[in-house]
Amino acid sequence: MIRFNNDYNHGAHPEILEALSAVNDNSFGGYGEDEWCKKAADLIRERVHCPDAAVHFFPGATQANFIVIASALSSVQSVIAADTGHINCHEAASVENTNHKIQTIPNTDGKITAAQIDACAGAYYEENEPEYYTEPKMVYLSFPTEQGTLYSLEELKAIREVCDKYGMYLFVDGARLGYGLGAVENDISVEDFAALTDVFYFGGTKCGALFGEAVVITSNDLKRRFKAFMKQNGAVLAKGWLLGLQFYTLLENDLYSEITKKADVLAMKIRDAFAKKGITFWVESPTNQQFVILNEKQQEVLGQNYTFEKTGSTPDGVIARFCTSWATTEEEVAQLIGDIEKL
Amino acid sequence: MIRFNNDYNHGAHPEILEALSAVNDNSFGGYGEDEWCKKAADLIRERVHCPDAAVHFFPGATQANFIVIASALSSVQSVIAADTGHINCHEAASVENTNHKIQTIPNTDGKITAAQIDACAGAYYEENEPEYYTEPKMVYLSFPTEQGTLYSLEELKAIREVCDKYGMYLFVDGARLGYGLGAVENDISVEDFAALTDVFYFGGTKCGALFGEAVVITSNDLKRRFKAFMKQNGAVLAKGWLLGLQFYTLLENDLYSEITKKADVLAMKIRDAFAKKGITFWVESPTNQQFVILNEKQQEVLGQNYTFEKTGSTPDGVIARFCTSWATTEEEVAQLIGDIEKL
Amino acid sequence: MIRFNNDYNHGAHPEILEALSAVNDNSFGGYGEDEWCKKAADLIRERVHCPDAAVHFFPGATQANFIVIASALSSVQSVIAADTGHINCHEAASVENTNHKIQTIPNTDGKITAAQIDACAGAYYEENEPEYYTEPKMVYLSFPTEQGTLYSLEELKAIREVCDKYGMYLFVDGARLGYGLGAVENDISVEDFAALTDVFYFGGTKCGALFGEAVVITSNDLKRRFKAFMKQNGAVLAKGWLLGLQFYTLLENDLYSEITKKADVLAMKIRDAFAKKGITFWVESPTNQQFVILNEKQQEVLGQNYTFEKTGSTPDGVIARFCTSWATTEEEVAQLIGDIEKL
Amino acid sequence: MIRFNNDYNHGAHPEILEALSAVNDNSFGGYGEDEWCKKAADLIRERVHCPDAAVHFFPGATQANFIVIASALSSVQSVIAADTGHINCHEAASVENTNHKIQTIPNTDGKITAAQIDACAGAYYEENEPEYYTEPKMVYLSFPTEQGTLYSLEELKAIREVCDKYGMYLFVDGARLGYGLGAVENDISVEDFAALTDVFYFGGTKCGALFGEAVVITSNDLKRRFKAFMKQNGAVLAKGWLLGLQFYTLLENDLYSEITKKADVLAMKIRDAFAKKGITFWVESPTNQQFVILNEKQQEVLGQNYTFEKTGSTPDGVIARFCTSWATTEEEVAQLIGDIEKL
Repeated sequence: MIRFNNDYNHGAHPEILEALSAVNDNSFGGYGEDEWCKKAADLIRERVHCPDAAVHFFPGATQANFIVIASALSSVQSVIAADTGHINCHEAASVENTNHKIQTIPNTDGKITAAQIDACAGAYYEENEPEYYTEPKMVYLSFPTEQGTLYSLEELKAIREVCDKYGMYLFVDGARLGYGLGAVENDISVEDFAALTDVFYFGGTKCGALFGEAVVITSNDLKRRFKAFMKQNGAVLAKGWLLGLQFYTLLENDLYSEITKKADVLAMKIRDAFAKKGITFWVESPTNQQFVILNEKQQEVLGQNYTFEKTGSTPDGVIARFCTSWATTEEEVAQLIGDIEKL
Repeated sequence: MIRFNNDYNHGAHPEILEALSAVNDNSFGGYGEDEWCKKAADLIRERVHCPDAAVHFFPGATQANFIVIASALSSVQSVIAADTGHINCHEAASVENTNHKIQTIPNTDGKITAAQIDACAGAYYEENEPEYYTEPKMVYLSFPTEQGTLYSLEELKAIREVCDKYGMYLFVDGARLGYGLGAVENDISVEDFAALTDVFYFGGTKCGALFGEAVVITSNDLKRRFKAFMKQNGAVLAKGWLLGLQFYTLLENDLYSEITKKADVLAMKIRDAFAKKGITFWVESPTNQQFVILNEKQQEVLGQNYTFEKTGSTPDGVIARFCTSWATTEEEVAQLIGDIEKL
Repeated sequence: MIRFNNDYNHGAHPEILEALSAVNDNSFGGYGEDEWCKKAADLIRERVHCPDAAVHFFPGATQANFIVIASALSSVQSVIAADTGHINCHEAASVENTNHKIQTIPNTDGKITAAQIDACAGAYYEENEPEYYTEPKMVYLSFPTEQGTLYSLEELKAIREVCDKYGMYLFVDGARLGYGLGAVENDISVEDFAALTDVFYFGGTKCGALFGEAVVITSNDLKRRFKAFMKQNGAVLAKGWLLGLQFYTLLENDLYSEITKKADVLAMKIRDAFAKKGITFWVESPTNQQFVILNEKQQEVLGQNYTFEKTGSTPDGVIARFCTSWATTEEEVAQLIGDIEKL
Repeated sequence: MIRFNNDYNHGAHPEILEALSAVNDNSFGGYGEDEWCKKAADLIRERVHCPDAAVHFFPGATQANFIVIASALSSVQSVIAADTGHINCHEAASVENTNHKIQTIPNTDGKITAAQIDACAGAYYEENEPEYYTEPKMVYLSFPTEQGTLYSLEELKAIREVCDKYGMYLFVDGARLGYGLGAVENDISVEDFAALTDVFYFGGTKCGALFGEAVVITSNDLKRRFKAFMKQNGAVLAKGWLLGLQFYTLLENDLYSEITKKADVLAMKIRDAFAKKGITFWVESPTNQQFVILNEKQQEVLGQNYTFEKTGSTPDGVIARFCTSWATTEEEVAQLIGDIEKL
């Protein structure tokens, strides 16, 4: 059985395990105050061309999401997100649990537009009694989205303008950042993300690390006391160097880009195979997640050798997600394509 | 520089890294629904003689502490703890952040007594208007305590009785459980913990794992929807098998006991060296944490080759904590003892 | 200027002020533990035919709403409501502030259906990993709704069935209960509300009292420690008898029904005048709130002598709310009707 | 039976009821946006010599306390208070329920000192890892304290200096402000409170109003979005003018001072009677709350005609609180004194 159900079903890139073994006899300072976290943070600051950025390492993405939001907003402020945003759908109300309303906007292929955000935030400022509503103070985007789609640089800039218009923070969830950066059609660089957002992160868990996310904060407002929010919510790992070392390993020689770009290439091959077979796509995705609509027979046949995730249903069949990852091999994809061709 | 400042300054026992490498080419189900978590949970249930226990794996101890408490209590219920309890002192108000008051009791050598707990909880039930106070609903103990001391079986049983008297849950923070179990004077077994508490945990981070804690829930009340609280607070690791596999490795052949007991033995050697030199102890600890009072000269001399943690001060000098851990070697301890003798 | 903008722009029915004056030289027990709260609660239990109901008096409706919800749900449970529900729109995220997600359902004329609720709650139970979502545990309805509309007894019974199917509490916000009970087309009695809901309330602030709401809890689950939640959130008035006495005065000789029914009658006269004039209604309401669409000229003319609330806009003009209340007089309505006729 | 058990057992000063009746036929804007709230706020700003102060009216004191704190602090910031502070003891963990730790300091006669506060706040800034602790950001004082005692102007200034040293807000709970201002030994004026605190309030519920507290905010930081926090927590009364009108009535001709000062004078008479009889005081209080230690016989005799509150016990008897209030009459006090003399 080959797992295409998600991009977090394998451990870590071998270089990560080697790096962990190599330092296993050494001792380090605790709670992220160590040389590896420092080196990784310096490297990230250099890569994003932002020498003043604060960089913090989180064990996981749900933590990164809700803690960034909790640290940025008071309880009378809210975050704007697509209705399909990960924070709204898959994180067990972690944002509400930290006292914040999510103001949802209907998505198109997982994305929301500057115009929608403008209308949503603008409505608050047109209220006669704004104090009876929550102040929209942050916009949350996923890149790539939960449907594998990408914002363009132009779209991101337009959203940044709306954020500036209303004094809102812009937060990009980069749990799959590598797969977005590596897509052929992508035109946003990490420097752009650092320049256009207030906070974003390099996903590690889904992009080659054992676990971990690297949060990059460029807004001075958000830097202050941020680590206290991390500690309060249990996101400061005692052995923080485990995270710093992993990101240093991934980023030092740009292994991060290499392995995620390769996953995108493999995903495009799968896409082409499905397309050639005339199978309908639920959404057009240029990244490592591909969503197709499979009838019962197709599910049964492909289900014999591959796991994929059923994310919904349509009159024509279920929506099936096929994910590649940094761990996916050419051979696995070739075998899948062969079986798609036989459908 | 040899680090005796804490018990989380080294990576993991080599068998852990080997186990992680061994499965690195395999793929697994996500979010703790995998074979390693299942095997580790089964093993723990067997060890604690509690076939119905729920076992959940957490990345870290602060998460385990506040999520157990948040899941067990409503906002009008509180947890009783020593004033020195980790949840009261070192976790950035994570418990208050989930809406709960900690009712603190003055400690003696890090411990609180059944009589103190009885008085604290009893006061609530003697109020004319109890609804204006929070209902004490859980007792939190650390084993070993933050000062390295241990509860005896008799003391634990007495506390259990008080909990039963008032319908309170008993929660034991076992971040250093191994070092408590391994102490010569300890008379509590893991079966006792399972039988006498509602929830406790096997600490991994400080006891040989890269990271992770194994929470054991025996109370049926606390089992329901527990994983939703974990997810909501970001404590469900995407690659949950990393935690299951580590605990399986530590517990399968009782490596856990072996390496923590050895650390206790080494700590006793350090204790004897300090005692022989006439250095005053801040507290009598039978476990891996030793607290001595050092004058300036002694700090300076020992500070040349060893890191230790200054946890407070007295008129006679600072309180210095020397920790051994599963990673501490005979050689390191011999060198330290040599230098203590030369003080 | 005559205020038709809302139903809380006058003090209290004269009998209320007389009752307050009559007892002003007496002294009473504090925090709702007094004879008037007891008498009012007994009277309510008798009226709703529910001798075991718990009755609590709140200063205001926002407090009643969020505290009922906070006391009933854990943070991993959510409340289902119409997207137009007061708790979702007009209370500054008070529900999210107590850690709960509101699962909104699209309304039709302010109402939601049993089938919609069934689909919403059912989706949770069909999830493979329900712990990553919040458990729907309560349904919130307003009676009358924010648009003045009413549920029928049949609709309420159907919703109760869905609640029973999924183990959900049913909570009816009765801030304007009197105006619903008094409507000609209404077929639900207070006994029905007590029998079919777990908790509902008699609104006082909008129905003749200076201020106050009487919450009736029939579910045993919800009774326990409820007053602690009230106290914790500042809803226990020191001079609780002020609330008990007001409700006793309103309910003793059924002044409550009399004055709210009269307001409904007056609202129907206004409705008929608008209808006769051919003015479009935004929604058909049988209660004290009437919503019409006025063009600019009409707004200007009516705005000279009357205040009304603009609650939205349509291509044909703004949506204007005209409210009657217990304090509205025949003369005021006659004058308004005269001016409508002249439009 | 004459109630001396507290200062909230009577309705309101007759002028308040008259004022409410006088406007009962008028209509007003909702939610505190009305002429009476404006007039009362203007009057307060004038009295405290602070034309820029924000003034908000709350239904009750528990609401005022926790909402001021919730609006001022983030979840990683804490409030320093006496262990006997009302927020720590009598409000059902309302502060913790809004995610804040209370850092308690041992009281002396209900008070804490600048030196104690300095030590408590200073400890945070001496931590190596301050992010693992909550930042002390506010000091909460009660004036008078829960034991009836008063801070002197010199003490208040010293505390203000410590607040400035560490960037902390100073908040004075004035639920009984009138009784403090009216005490013979008091040397702090309302202008002083406005000048030296960031936020304080005039208590109404215990000082002649039916209900209500007038919160005065002088710190610009705290003014922003304050009303949203009020609304979110249900503290914006729909008929806000009820509160504005009461405070206008109390303050216009300084009825507030007159009636509370008289209560202090009566309390001193009771104090003298107890002293003459050789009865021990638990604490020396110059205000309307007197605490004496009564043996069983004394309790029994005085309990026949008077209610008083038992607030604790000592080896020599219970601690009994006798309160006067704006509603206490000369006759009631004369009768009590007669019975004390007969003890």
